[in-house]
Amino acid sequence: MSEVYAVRRGLLRDRCAAVGSAAVLVSRPANVRYLAGGAPPGAVLLLGPDEDVLLCPRAPTGEPDHGHTDDELRLVLLPPSGGEDPAVAAAELATTSGAESLAVEEHDLTVSRHRAMGSVAPRLRLTDLGTTVEQLRIVKDEEEIACLRIAAEITDQALGELLESILVGRTERHLALELERRLVDHGADGPAFATSVATGPNSGQGRHRPSDRRVEEGDFLSVCLGANYRGYRCEIGRTFVIGTAPAAWQIDLYDLVFAAQRAGREALVPGAAYRDVDRAARHLLDSAGHGECLAPWTGHGVGLEIDEDPQLAPAAMGKLDACVPVTVEPGVHLPGRGGVRIDDTLVVRPEADGGPELLTITTKELLAL
Amino acid sequence: MSEVYAVRRGLLRDRCAAVGSAAVLVSRPANVRYLAGGAPPGAVLLLGPDEDVLLCPRAPTGEPDHGHTDDELRLVLLPPSGGEDPAVAAAELATTSGAESLAVEEHDLTVSRHRAMGSVAPRLRLTDLGTTVEQLRIVKDEEEIACLRIAAEITDQALGELLESILVGRTERHLALELERRLVDHGADGPAFATSVATGPNSGQGRHRPSDRRVEEGDFLSVCLGANYRGYRCEIGRTFVIGTAPAAWQIDLYDLVFAAQRAGREALVPGAAYRDVDRAARHLLDSAGHGECLAPWTGHGVGLEIDEDPQLAPAAMGKLDACVPVTVEPGVHLPGRGGVRIDDTLVVRPEADGGPELLTITTKELLAL
Repeated sequence: MSEVYAVRRGLLRDRCAAVGSAAVLVSRPANVRYLAGGAPPGAVLLLGPDEDVLLCPRAPTGEPDHGHTDDELRLVLLPPSGGEDPAVAAAELATTSGAESLAVEEHDLTVSRHRAMGSVAPRLRLTDLGTTVEQLRIVKDEEEIACLRIAAEITDQALGELLESILVGRTERHLALELERRLVDHGADGPAFATSVATGPNSGQGRHRPSDRRVEEGDFLSVCLGANYRGYRCEIGRTFVIGTAPAAWQIDLYDLVFAAQRAGREALVPGAAYRDVDRAARHLLDSAGHGECLAPWTGHGVGLEIDEDPQLAPAAMGKLDACVPVTVEPGVHLPGRGGVRIDDTLVVRPEADGGPELLTITTKELLAL
Repeated sequence: MSEVYAVRRGLLRDRCAAVGSAAVLVSRPANVRYLAGGAPPGAVLLLGPDEDVLLCPRAPTGEPDHGHTDDELRLVLLPPSGGEDPAVAAAELATTSGAESLAVEEHDLTVSRHRAMGSVAPRLRLTDLGTTVEQLRIVKDEEEIACLRIAAEITDQALGELLESILVGRTERHLALELERRLVDHGADGPAFATSVATGPNSGQGRHRPSDRRVEEGDFLSVCLGANYRGYRCEIGRTFVIGTAPAAWQIDLYDLVFAAQRAGREALVPGAAYRDVDRAARHLLDSAGHGECLAPWTGHGVGLEIDEDPQLAPAAMGKLDACVPVTVEPGVHLPGRGGVRIDDTLVVRPEADGGPELLTITTKELLAL
């Protein structure tokens, strides 16, 4: 397992060497984890001229809780009392190893940290690595996809159990906490993001923060949750009606969003432009007159972060590859009334392999609970 | 209530004017909240030459969930599709309002954001605001302390209920989730930080991440939790023994940490140097031979963040003021055996007012559960 991290670091090193940078500092947490395996909070990864080093703040007591790392990676624990920034220590180490330039993640480092690095290593030229590591992370290997598949199974189980319980009278906040507890019960390391439960007029909003509103008869109930399994995060969103008979407007709105979501899923083929996948889902909602209130994207990549590249949005540049996991999550929210969101995590696969692999398999029928 | 924010902004404006900066951009989320009341994720606050403006990313659907803001604050919602960085929009606005320089939080802004601000407003001189707002936040007003007091009450209730339940056989992870659910049950907006539950050999570690280890007879059980109430976060840590008869080493270690924690609490008087409070708690543990494994601090400020200035540490510079809420949380962890941590949140008060106000009142006797 540790080989995979060394291979990823090799790829990054090659890309950087091609643009003339012999040393690289990775500080964004998900990027460090991708390249080093587990990493303690605050750790940074230096790919130096001679060796790869993971610089970790030492935990107050005992060793850092860093999970698995590999043999080709030297571990440096910074003294707990010093309060030294690992990025600054890395700049010092790079310059004493003879590096003349160091590519850093300017979209992650603060101005203060960047300046402190320059101060300890004034002869080291700091260049911008940009989102090189994020780009490497877009296409997943089968081990990563296996983690996402397990995350999705856990998520489906947690949601399935909730649907069997009594919902009327319970608050959004409690339902969200119960879903998170069930995720952990089924083996998640935790929720992939803050679970959203939205009832009645709140329903259909993507990242609604659960409130003390209670579920009522006749409500739309929309939930959005996901498990974090070994760092990999998936997402599912479903909308239900509470009570026996959905109103006509609820059925119509549900059918519309369902059709849009299916169109988005069906557009997931290798080589499809990001914006075309977005358009497939969006145009149905647009032509039904909901264009104004739509989110700026209808899906996004998932992996070590819940919101990764690519973004499926009107202005996104680029094309889908096979083995890219994405969400397809159109939704419509009618102010004051509520709405519908349907959200799946899928992996792009060639048609020869059966087309997109649906990871979140909870039914998308309009259930009346 | 909105006046308090205007007064805080006035104070900040005065400090900045004194060092020659007419315009200020606050981007660190807790600082924005402190100066503007509730603020949606990603919002930034511009104190411009003419007016104060809160620039918010517009939520995908509907209005931003920004809580209460005030009349003297203009709200600017950025279009959802643009993906524009509110800090960049603020730099543009500052320069078109005639500002020549803008003080920014270099410890918060990334290099990329800072550069993007420079690009849209090349004639605007960007200076460093430093931690000016964090320093203003150290001394709390009575409304802030009232929020912390309620947060502590909620925390004591959640912990008290846990102590009445059966613990043996349950996992750290489940106990942590249950504590968090109880915090919300009692009115918390959420946990103030990730609840820590540590059993047996894990006990006594400050930020132990709950594992699947189950509580066993004879274990030390240490918990650390806190409620977030209206943004204000408190912290309590307690250690218990499981079973009827603590071992002699457990009693000795508990008494030692208890004495250290009491010494720290008693050192909390207005005018006391941060390092002297730390020393009061630390020297007892040090002279008992535990110096090596101690955390680099024995307490810290709390408020809108769980870990604020001041830090109570050997090298900390500064003196306590009245109305500063801090934790006192010494602990000892013996590798392979476990340990004890005792953690309270208190408010520094003059002796004439009765001395330090203890917010977290759960007993510190060694309970056998």
